[in-house]
Parts: sequence; C-alpha cells; structure tokens
Amino acid sequence: MKVGIVATYSTKYELRSEKEAWELIDEVVQGLLRSVEKGVGKGDIDLVITSSFSDRFGGILHTAPYVASKVGASKGFRVENACASGGTAIYLAWNMIRAGLARNVLIVGFEKMSYQPTSAEANEVLMAAGHPEEVVAGVPFVSLYALIAKAYMDRYGVTEEDLALVAVKNHENGLRNPLAAMRRKVTVEDVMRSPYVSWPLKLYDCSLVSDGAVALLVSGEPKKFTDTPVYIEGIGLAHDTAGIFERDDITALKAISAAAREAFNASGLTVRDVDVLEVHDAFTVSELIAYEMLGLAQRGEGVKILKEGITAFTGSKPVNPSGGLKSKGHPIGATGVGMAAELFWQLRGEAGERQVKGAERGLMENHGGTGSTAVVAIFSR
Amino acid sequence: MKVGIVATYSTKYELRSEKEAWELIDEVVQGLLRSVEKGVGKGDIDLVITSSFSDRFGGILHTAPYVASKVGASKGFRVENACASGGTAIYLAWNMIRAGLARNVLIVGFEKMSYQPTSAEANEVLMAAGHPEEVVAGVPFVSLYALIAKAYMDRYGVTEEDLALVAVKNHENGLRNPLAAMRRKVTVEDVMRSPYVSWPLKLYDCSLVSDGAVALLVSGEPKKFTDTPVYIEGIGLAHDTAGIFERDDITALKAISAAAREAFNASGLTVRDVDVLEVHDAFTVSELIAYEMLGLAQRGEGVKILKEGITAFTGSKPVNPSGGLKSKGHPIGATGVGMAAELFWQLRGEAGERQVKGAERGLMENHGGTGSTAVVAIFSR
Repeated sequence: MKVGIVATYSTKYELRSEKEAWELIDEVVQGLLRSVEKGVGKGDIDLVITSSFSDRFGGILHTAPYVASKVGASKGFRVENACASGGTAIYLAWNMIRAGLARNVLIVGFEKMSYQPTSAEANEVLMAAGHPEEVVAGVPFVSLYALIAKAYMDRYGVTEEDLALVAVKNHENGLRNPLAAMRRKVTVEDVMRSPYVSWPLKLYDCSLVSDGAVALLVSGEPKKFTDTPVYIEGIGLAHDTAGIFERDDITALKAISAAAREAFNASGLTVRDVDVLEVHDAFTVSELIAYEMLGLAQRGEGVKILKEGITAFTGSKPVNPSGGLKSKGHPIGATGVGMAAELFWQLRGEAGERQVKGAERGLMENHGGTGSTAVVAIFSR
Repeated sequence: MKVGIVATYSTKYELRSEKEAWELIDEVVQGLLRSVEKGVGKGDIDLVITSSFSDRFGGILHTAPYVASKVGASKGFRVENACASGGTAIYLAWNMIRAGLARNVLIVGFEKMSYQPTSAEANEVLMAAGHPEEVVAGVPFVSLYALIAKAYMDRYGVTEEDLALVAVKNHENGLRNPLAAMRRKVTVEDVMRSPYVSWPLKLYDCSLVSDGAVALLVSGEPKKFTDTPVYIEGIGLAHDTAGIFERDDITALKAISAAAREAFNASGLTVRDVDVLEVHDAFTVSELIAYEMLGLAQRGEGVKILKEGITAFTGSKPVNPSGGLKSKGHPIGATGVGMAAELFWQLRGEAGERQVKGAERGLMENHGGTGSTAVVAIFSR
C-alpha cells in the first residue's frame, strides 16, 4: 500500500505570533481542509494525531479531541518525543495506515514558545527534553550541544568559522521562504561576532525560539484527495540513550543512522537517491553531524561537503532549502511536520523562489533531545 | 492473536511522594522487570509508550528514550490524552501488537502532581485538559463537572447525598488497598460537611491530586513471559466534543458508550459478562454516569443500582474495588494504566484483601477532560 501526503498547511513561523496556540491550530486545520484538492468528506479523516512539546508553551493540552471534533474524526491522541514529536506523528501515521489501523490521518503539530515571556524561560522549558540527571543538574540544552560541538571540533579539526557556514547557508535559504521567522542574511563575521550562548556555540549557531503550526493529511487512499500526492516511501524511528553522558562517542548521533537504516530498508532507497533534504539544524553542529549519520558525508567530512557546496541551494544535495530551524524557525511540535510540508511543496514543484529544480525525491531528518530520538523519512512525487 | 498483560508494577499512590517523577518511573520499571515470571530477555521489549499529562507535574519530558534505554528498546513515544492518557497507551499497544507493529510493549504511566506546591496551582494545570475557550474563560475543571452534576441531578432527581454514596463506597474499598493514597473511611455526613469546591460538588466529591506511576507489560506472545497472563479481549477509544458547551446533553458522556461499543464488538462480550470494574470516578457524578454509559444501569438509574448494592464490593458488579480515583488516587498519566494493573491482580486472584471472589473478566473505563476522550477495555483471565 502506498501512503501519501495529500495536503498540508502551515502558518508563517514567527518569533512571537499574535495568535494563541489554539488559534494557530485553527488556522492550519481550516487552511488544510480548504487546500485538499478533491475535498474532504464527512468521516474521511478517521484519526487525529497532534504533536507538541510542552503545555508551558501555549497552556493547552488534550488537543486531540479539539482537532478531532473540528474534522469529524472519532479518534485521536497527542504524541510527544521532544523536538522529534512531529516526526513521531508521521511515523505512527504511516505505520498505522499501512497496518490497517487508520485510513486518513490528520496530523497537527504546533508550539507557541513565546508563551514564555523570555527566551531564558523558554530555555528552562526546553531542558525537560534531556535526561533527568541533566535536568536536575540544570544543564541548558545549548550546553549539551556545546559539549557535542567541542568534542566534534577537537576530533575533526573543525573551527567555529566552519560551524558558522551552516548558519550562513541556511539564513541565505531562508531569505527565499515567506514562512521563515527570521529572513536575515548573515555572514561568517556576523556569526563570529554574535555572543556566546554556551561556548563554543554562539547566538547564530542556535535555532529560533518561535511560534508556529503545521497540518498534514496522510492517506492510505491518496488519489481520492489529489492527483499529485507525495508518497512516503519509508520512515524510521530510533532512540539513543537519553543522556549524552551515557554515550561512548558524543560526536555521533546514532539514532539518526538507525532511523535512516530503517527508512532506507523500507523504501529500498538511500540518501544517494534523494534530490532535496530537510535536516534538523537545531544547532549548526547538528546539521554537520546529520550529514555524516545519513551517509551524505564520511565521518568528520561534514564541513568538507558543505564547503564544496554540495548541500547549498544550488548543489547536488541541497539541505534545508526552507531555511531550516536556523532561519525558518523551530516551533518544537511543528518542526518535523513542517519538514514534511516543505518536501511536499518541493516535490510537487510548489516551493516558489526556493524550489529545488526537478526534485523528485526528498528526505527529512528530525531529532529530539541530544539525538535521543530520531526520525528519518524518504518521500517521492 | 491474543494480546495479554504479562506483568505490572505500581508505586503506592501518595498525596505527596518524596520521589521525583523520574524516580517514580525508575521504581516501576525496575519493579516490573523483576516481576516478570519467566524473565525478560534483551531485545524482548520492542516498544515503549509513556503516558503523562503535563510537564508542569514533574518537570520532565521526552521520557520514552529514558525508559527505552533502561529496557533495551529501540523505539518509543509518549502519548497524552488528558486523564485518558493511560488508557490511550493501552489502546495503542493492543492495536499495534495485533497489527504486527510491535511484539512486546512496555507502558509507563506517571504523574507527580505535587510538583505544584498547592492544589490551587495543580488545578490550574488541570484546566489545560478542557476546550481552549474553557481554558481562556478560566473555568476550573471541577466547575465543568459541577455543571454536569447539576444538570444530571435536576433531570433525574438526584441529591447531593446520593452523590456522596459513591465517595462512601470507594473510600470503603480503598481501606483494603495498600496502594491507595487516602485510606480513610468517610460517611455521607463527612461528605456533606466537606466544603463546596464548586457547588454542588464538595471536597469529598472530588478525586485526589496525587503522585504515582504504574508500569504494564503488554505482549503478543504472553505465554513467553507468564503462564497466567490477563488477556485484553477488546478495547475502544472515542472522542466527544472538547467543550461541554458544544453538547446537546451534558448529562451523557457519549465517548464512554462509543468506546464501550468498540470494546464490546472487538471482544464479543458486554458489561453483563464482567465480574469486576474499574471506572473513572474523577468526581462522584462521573461514576454514576459511567454506569449508565456502560449499560450497567438505565439512564438516570445510576443511583438506583448503587443503592441496591450492585456495584458494592460484595455486589454482583463491584466497581472500583481499588478505591478508585476517589480513594486510591488520580495521578493523571498513571490512572488508566493503574486500572489495568488492578484488573490484572483481580483476575489473577492476587488482589489480597480487596480480591473480588472468582473474578474472571474485568472492565476498565478511563476518560479524559469532560469525557472528551474515553477508553474502555475488557480483560479476561
């Protein structure tokens, strides 16, 4: 059975939306229903999966019946796997449809991070994605990634300027995306001049605390809704240890390679077969490690392929044409869903100025915590 | 394929546990692993589902990889459906195992409600389970149930004393349960003298803000782990509207009857076939309405069967021998999992002083919000 994405709708991602969390949900549910080309009938949607991180971002829980009653679905639930919540929702939708547990699944990912008045407070909420001992120790998430970055830089001779190149590329891409929260060109000098958040990571090495929501309709009968679905060819989900202190090698994010293996096996495709990628650049270093875990580069050669322009918008494997989490934004529960939305548009040739020419297959990589959960999926038109 | 519960472990429920949320999780995961009669091998558990309501109760999120790494599972996610989160986890486990998406699922439900310093603050968190417009209006959850109670009392001539009888029965049952958070006998007079929380509901009409965790191992190959599994014969999940203001009749909790229908259809059994029930008595009135939605009583006759002693510990259909949410406690994400644990012990004849004699089949009913989500399951030994 071919499972396809048949429609999607996204809010603009914003640093501070004027809308409340449920208004963001309303916007994307209504937007999605309007955008289904052949229409959605009563009873068509039989399962709702919502995806969000924390009710400290938005003040609402129990969102499944809220969404379900808007679309006439009788069943639903919310999933949470930190920043991989959206990917987890897609993983469950694909598997449940193929197993006959659902026909048409509406996924709604959202996060209203500006519900916390300051980014210091938002970062306190984000800490909850770590291992409990990291939470107790009060380690901010950026500091866990700073440890990863430092180990990676030491082992492979990577510099802060090298990391900055990821930010430069993704901010350049974001300039072409009207949905991006921060459409601002940045140079290596801008990144280098930005203040340290947790050495060696600076402000511009970090993705954006932001607000947004994305809806996705995943179907086991895709041609019923559109003549041009985007198929999910395979998807994988895997865990690593919850804490980085439990790992032999913190420069690897092994859950990504495990999830990729599952997606590659299910689809019979590999990273060589894809034309465009959306990758979880929560921090600049994460994108480089993701290249390596996905098999796009050898270990330690992430910077090399970046410098060669392979992952640039005009390269052979463009990564994050949307601007990524760096420029588009990272409203946690929406992020994975938004990656699939971007690939839906890319593979249907609807990505406007940021369209990757002739893209036929795409890959998304969405991870949570310090890579304690990862989801990788391959899509085709 | 017969799917069975093969082991369970529960903390004592407490008004204020000395343990942090992750310590409650650790306790039940270790306790469960020790209690599996034929042992658990490396790689046996292939999926973890955690269940909790809010990170404002406990400060941690992304609990799936934390649990998964303790038991060697490579996949997991957390589900949330308000107070029906635990039931939702069981619903997904049963369906995913039967569909071949998992073999052995470890469910861990938990909530550390005393993480909020006062019950007023805990109640603010609980509000998030309502419809967003109810949340914005600042309606405490007990007030939504007070509206339901008032409408129910008016329509069926039910008195506050009648409601009190539910509390009296369940507190009496809780006296026999060493896991119960509040082992205190209460009389109708005690209930009537307790202060109004939201008229007509008084303090003793309400379940307990409490801490606890429960682990459950659900298996598609139950005899591998124990000679005496408790089978899940059928399970259903259904939504109603998110807000009670959207309903024609607020004296009914229609999701319960819809979920029961699904469970009855799947099992070929009905409420007539069960010997013991655990029912979601978040408020006294909820238990009475649940009787009616499950078909245990005609509409409006919940009080009648209660007064006849049918649902008493010694009656023909004992409801909440555990003490229920009223006396045992209601640590949100653990509650539904704890109901299944109680029925596991009851059907294996391991319920000690509170053992319902000769119980062969049991039913659990777990609902969330104002019945916006409900899960009903039937178990057999």
